[in-house]
Amino acid sequence: SSSSGSSSSGSSSSSSSSSGSSSSSSSGSSSSGSSSSSSSSTSSSYFVVDSFLKCMNLNLNLWKEKFLDIFDTNMMHRADESNRRLHHTTLFNLDSLIVRRGQEFQVKITFNRPYKPAEDKFALEFVIGSSPQYSKGTYIPVFPTPDRQTSWAGRVLETSNNVVTMGITPAANCIVGKYHMYVAIVTPYGIRRTRRDDSRDLYILFNPWAADDEVFLDDETEREECVMTELGIIYHGSYDDIAERTWNYGQFNHGMLDACLYILDRCQMPITNRGDPVKVTRQASAMLNSRDDEGVLVGNWSGNYVDGVAPTSWTGSTDILLSYYRSRQPVAYAQCWVYAAVFNTFLRCLGIPSRVVTNFFSAHDNDGNLKTDIILDENGRIDRSRTRDSIWNYHCWNECYMARQDLPPGFGGWQVVDATPQETSDGLYRCGPASVQAIKHGQTCYPYDAPFVFAEVNSDVVFNVRSKDGTLEPVKVNRTHVGRVVLTKNPGDLTRRDITDQYKFPEGSPEERTVLEKAVKYGCKREQSNPSPADVELNMPTLEVTMGEDFELTLEFVNHSGETRTVDAYISGSVVYYTGVTSSEFLFRTPTVTLLDIEARTYMRHLVEQSNLNFIVTGKVEETEQIVSAMKVVTLRNPRLIIEVSENGRVNEEMIASVRFTNPFSFNLEGVYVRMEGPGLMTAATKYYSLIPGHASLVWSEYFTPQRAGTSRMVAVLDCAALRQVYGEASVTIEP
Amino acid sequence: SSSSGSSSSGSSSSSSSSSGSSSSSSSGSSSSGSSSSSSSSTSSSYFVVDSFLKCMNLNLNLWKEKFLDIFDTNMMHRADESNRRLHHTTLFNLDSLIVRRGQEFQVKITFNRPYKPAEDKFALEFVIGSSPQYSKGTYIPVFPTPDRQTSWAGRVLETSNNVVTMGITPAANCIVGKYHMYVAIVTPYGIRRTRRDDSRDLYILFNPWAADDEVFLDDETEREECVMTELGIIYHGSYDDIAERTWNYGQFNHGMLDACLYILDRCQMPITNRGDPVKVTRQASAMLNSRDDEGVLVGNWSGNYVDGVAPTSWTGSTDILLSYYRSRQPVAYAQCWVYAAVFNTFLRCLGIPSRVVTNFFSAHDNDGNLKTDIILDENGRIDRSRTRDSIWNYHCWNECYMARQDLPPGFGGWQVVDATPQETSDGLYRCGPASVQAIKHGQTCYPYDAPFVFAEVNSDVVFNVRSKDGTLEPVKVNRTHVGRVVLTKNPGDLTRRDITDQYKFPEGSPEERTVLEKAVKYGCKREQSNPSPADVELNMPTLEVTMGEDFELTLEFVNHSGETRTVDAYISGSVVYYTGVTSSEFLFRTPTVTLLDIEARTYMRHLVEQSNLNFIVTGKVEETEQIVSAMKVVTLRNPRLIIEVSENGRVNEEMIASVRFTNPFSFNLEGVYVRMEGPGLMTAATKYYSLIPGHASLVWSEYFTPQRAGTSRMVAVLDCAALRQVYGEASVTIEP
Repeated sequence: SSSSGSSSSGSSSSSSSSSGSSSSSSSGSSSSGSSSSSSSSTSSSYFVVDSFLKCMNLNLNLWKEKFLDIFDTNMMHRADESNRRLHHTTLFNLDSLIVRRGQEFQVKITFNRPYKPAEDKFALEFVIGSSPQYSKGTYIPVFPTPDRQTSWAGRVLETSNNVVTMGITPAANCIVGKYHMYVAIVTPYGIRRTRRDDSRDLYILFNPWAADDEVFLDDETEREECVMTELGIIYHGSYDDIAERTWNYGQFNHGMLDACLYILDRCQMPITNRGDPVKVTRQASAMLNSRDDEGVLVGNWSGNYVDGVAPTSWTGSTDILLSYYRSRQPVAYAQCWVYAAVFNTFLRCLGIPSRVVTNFFSAHDNDGNLKTDIILDENGRIDRSRTRDSIWNYHCWNECYMARQDLPPGFGGWQVVDATPQETSDGLYRCGPASVQAIKHGQTCYPYDAPFVFAEVNSDVVFNVRSKDGTLEPVKVNRTHVGRVVLTKNPGDLTRRDITDQYKFPEGSPEERTVLEKAVKYGCKREQSNPSPADVELNMPTLEVTMGEDFELTLEFVNHSGETRTVDAYISGSVVYYTGVTSSEFLFRTPTVTLLDIEARTYMRHLVEQSNLNFIVTGKVEETEQIVSAMKVVTLRNPRLIIEVSENGRVNEEMIASVRFTNPFSFNLEGVYVRMEGPGLMTAATKYYSLIPGHASLVWSEYFTPQRAGTSRMVAVLDCAALRQVYGEASVTIEP
Repeated sequence: SSSSGSSSSGSSSSSSSSSGSSSSSSSGSSSSGSSSSSSSSTSSSYFVVDSFLKCMNLNLNLWKEKFLDIFDTNMMHRADESNRRLHHTTLFNLDSLIVRRGQEFQVKITFNRPYKPAEDKFALEFVIGSSPQYSKGTYIPVFPTPDRQTSWAGRVLETSNNVVTMGITPAANCIVGKYHMYVAIVTPYGIRRTRRDDSRDLYILFNPWAADDEVFLDDETEREECVMTELGIIYHGSYDDIAERTWNYGQFNHGMLDACLYILDRCQMPITNRGDPVKVTRQASAMLNSRDDEGVLVGNWSGNYVDGVAPTSWTGSTDILLSYYRSRQPVAYAQCWVYAAVFNTFLRCLGIPSRVVTNFFSAHDNDGNLKTDIILDENGRIDRSRTRDSIWNYHCWNECYMARQDLPPGFGGWQVVDATPQETSDGLYRCGPASVQAIKHGQTCYPYDAPFVFAEVNSDVVFNVRSKDGTLEPVKVNRTHVGRVVLTKNPGDLTRRDITDQYKFPEGSPEERTVLEKAVKYGCKREQSNPSPADVELNMPTLEVTMGEDFELTLEFVNHSGETRTVDAYISGSVVYYTGVTSSEFLFRTPTVTLLDIEARTYMRHLVEQSNLNFIVTGKVEETEQIVSAMKVVTLRNPRLIIEVSENGRVNEEMIASVRFTNPFSFNLEGVYVRMEGPGLMTAATKYYSLIPGHASLVWSEYFTPQRAGTSRMVAVLDCAALRQVYGEASVTIEP
């Protein structure tokens, strides 16, 4: 029996080494061999020493008087306890301990007798991943005494009778994810350790409140917005006619934390890299799109979404992330703002400060050039088949905040990450993180993908005339069209914030020139020629057009020459996706007058989502052979949804929300989806109408029970093939 | 008929735009419609205007007197003509024009009558890839007149009767690969263009001789070695007992240029990126190994190579690259020097200066640490199951030379690229290019993979004692073991060149300390603790051991304390792969004497390729509890092959080469492959012996016919499971 005893003790030390998961598998068999003692009825049971004692015929009660023994552990995990309150995790709808790294949290351990620091030896062991190892940071023992500390600090905060309150401070650069905790006691016969029990699981997140964390953001207003806020605004439309869309990021909703961590598991990101915000955000920018890695969202810019949800139809991220988590399948469909919104949810959920930004006139560079070539034929007409580079009317991406220890000082702060699959970065569809400071200063030599982002906000638009032998001659260079304005939501209120100056120096300033020269030095190819501007200027004033209305398009020719000028001009009017890809041309004419009537029937049957009409006017001045050109995107104003919510709402008391809509057209709308949701109010609900007759009205009412007190918003979207992006929202205040 | 004429002219201009490949497809039909005129019997036929003229009932002869017409083109492509001599491409065994970018070459065009610059308009059109486009650099017209120049300069060098000699200078940053040339003449009725004909194909390569090329290398000795030399030396073995292996890179052999370009096609590398040496070398570092992209070489470190060729058995790159090109299948098997050697062939073939370097004691860092952890148990014994990071006895990679326009000034020059699949870089198995200067100065913030390469030459070896509760305590830090010496072949002779100082400042210098601090700032994790050295020193002197011999291993204990010291030491002797992975332990003992007899029979039956014995001695000083340790790699000396070559060799006269070998062992060698090859002498030949009895001798004689005059070397390798890496070589001089 002595040899069986020592082998049992040996197996104890061996499972302590391979630890975590392997100990849990051996716990079942050993506990079944132990007699039902008082300890087996507590949640903290043992897996080695009990059976060993039995073998040794020792008196259990005697043992337990002499040696320290664990009766209970209390993770103090409830949302209203101090751990989650101090760690800013109370909003998570999840009944687990959720804390942030680099900041102390507390666990209470109840022993069989008072803890004696001088003679008792115990440790809390934190374990993550399938093969925990101390040197990899996936197995971390935390000790109560100052003489024996690891990278996670431990101390006894309070001792009261048999209960010890331990303070644990995870390292500020530790791995982020779901850990399990064990309690281990050293006995003369080996290590006595609690068995695996889900109640001792805990989540450790990034911590923008901790000065040692790489994602530290020293501004409470920004943190409140970029980590804690669930409702956001995404800007779209045209730079001179900006539209807004409210989005429910829902990062604290039930299931979201597990869904976000699943994304990293799905792509088998090495556990040891999951404490590094650079690697986590780069990996996630690849995984948020389904290209080349079965990631979260399937892109679709075709206009045909019948086998999925139209990109314009979503109101929030929750449905998307939960669907991916449950089905293990990419979710259909997304366009840039959906990628950016869901990425934002991921980042805020894990605790990396983030925001969605919109760049108006975003160049989509496909070959490392700093120029977007528009090819005209010899008559000055745009040659669509040869114009490959595209300018998106707008493009959304994310910024996330971190120190960038991998770069020299000065390039920390906001970093561009982009999950929309535009171009492969080093073999995969992903982009960033690229330092916004590096982009502003033209330091595109620093990883990742800075030249690509630089081109998105800085490209020149070059109008080239193509001669018959295939050579191109640049005739006009517009150096201010691209990256016209970059917007994000202002922290703390519902206004917009112009952050263009964080990406670029003012157009025409000496700094701007220096930056562009630097970027060229780093290999960006820029248009060198500088054709003299035509002495005839062509403008198209801004228009506000409501969907379905006829309107007038004005061309304004300004003759600076003092002489007679004759312009032979062409207008091309087309319905475009926001990516600048033409869906269909509805107007192509040589104007004899400079005022055109555009009738609604000429564009209505061509409309695609996002309802942009794009007019390009090009012409040649007969006397000078110079080319004049102007481009104008007209965003059609959609009708609104009206949302009404019953008054005097209280937590857990049923309320009612109604959506009203009138079809403004004489024709029927078919296959109409209406969606509604609001954080803390209602999870996403959908209603389908197979047909809404011309000029008919609908009212959809839905009961809901608010979960939280405070002011929130209810958001609704109506979407069908003929009419996309009809929004409405209402502010709702809930009393406790 | 006038409308049919203009439509034909329209189709002419449209194929000129889509150009290249589409024109070739339309050429067949139009030429079959044309009458057999004098022009159709020349190699330059036309595809549009002939049939047009027929429609118009114009007199062909009258036409041809009036308008310029093409009779013939001469690419001056032969190896002995000035184009290839001046462009350093005469060695290519390929009957095509091969030139280098940024440097003028000549083409002769024979017209029907003398060329009149004032009235005749023609162009040479160069086309690459499937959708040629002027703005992408895949369609380049070159004009003879100064008023009409593109990025490729053109000029008339000589006019003699009807023959025009054109000089063409491809842009110094143009795409590298196989182009096709057309000659196009502008007529009043459209463009008249030669049809597709393989004789007008040409290859354009990188140009280390051109100052504007990013791969410009201003040193003729270096260029001669790193671009033009086919035979190289690769260093291996142990840093204090260096072995050499001669390798036939064979970059100019028949089929090699097409095989190397195929590698870029196979991975669908965008044509537009193929002028950028950074992108080409990064892409190739991924494609040279078969991991994740069906690339060239399958790695195998298992010791079992029966379904392929053993890594030690290759003598050159030609067989490997031709096999991949012909079979479209990855080739089995490679280890690091095979990857580096074949990569070197690829780089030199395309004109990027390159060399193979060997780093002795190369740390293989798998988690961004600057330390390699060796885990000891509490008694000071190495715990192999927990020691995961590995130190390779040596590791080979490539350096290639380029300007690095994507980085700030100062980081051009030699760049590390590595095709051996060690760790994924941004999702794929590849590594580099990483600036050697950046590594030396700790500027690991610049792409690509500088932190990984930095760790390969700079890691600390940390001996940790693991306590029972799983924590590690560093007890000894060796900061000089890793990256002990970096070697490459000296240009111009057969000696070795120590380039360690290009990677690191001297050990212990203030610069070295600064650099390591900088790397830590950029996120490399370094062992911070600095345990005091034991006052007992343990050394193992260097050994030279011939395979199959018994030998003595001496342990030298030096007591610096002045007091009595008792050391309890363990010796672990094992047969290791060069990667440091243990194949089998053959000796494990606690020495009572400090002199050990190692009998050959204890290691012979465990031997794997590369024949390294690794001894690790660890021990604890009883009086101070300090840990002492020493590591020693013993490389066993193999027998040599003797090569004899008949004398007085002349080009194209048959000669004979004989390989002699005597089995030095009493046991039989089974399944023995002998390979022999020599550049300009003999392509790789293989001979198989199913059995060589103990102490028996063999002679293998092979006839060959030398192709080139000059001094070359014949290289042979003998390889079988029991005895790897038996080499021989002989210098051979061939008279013209």
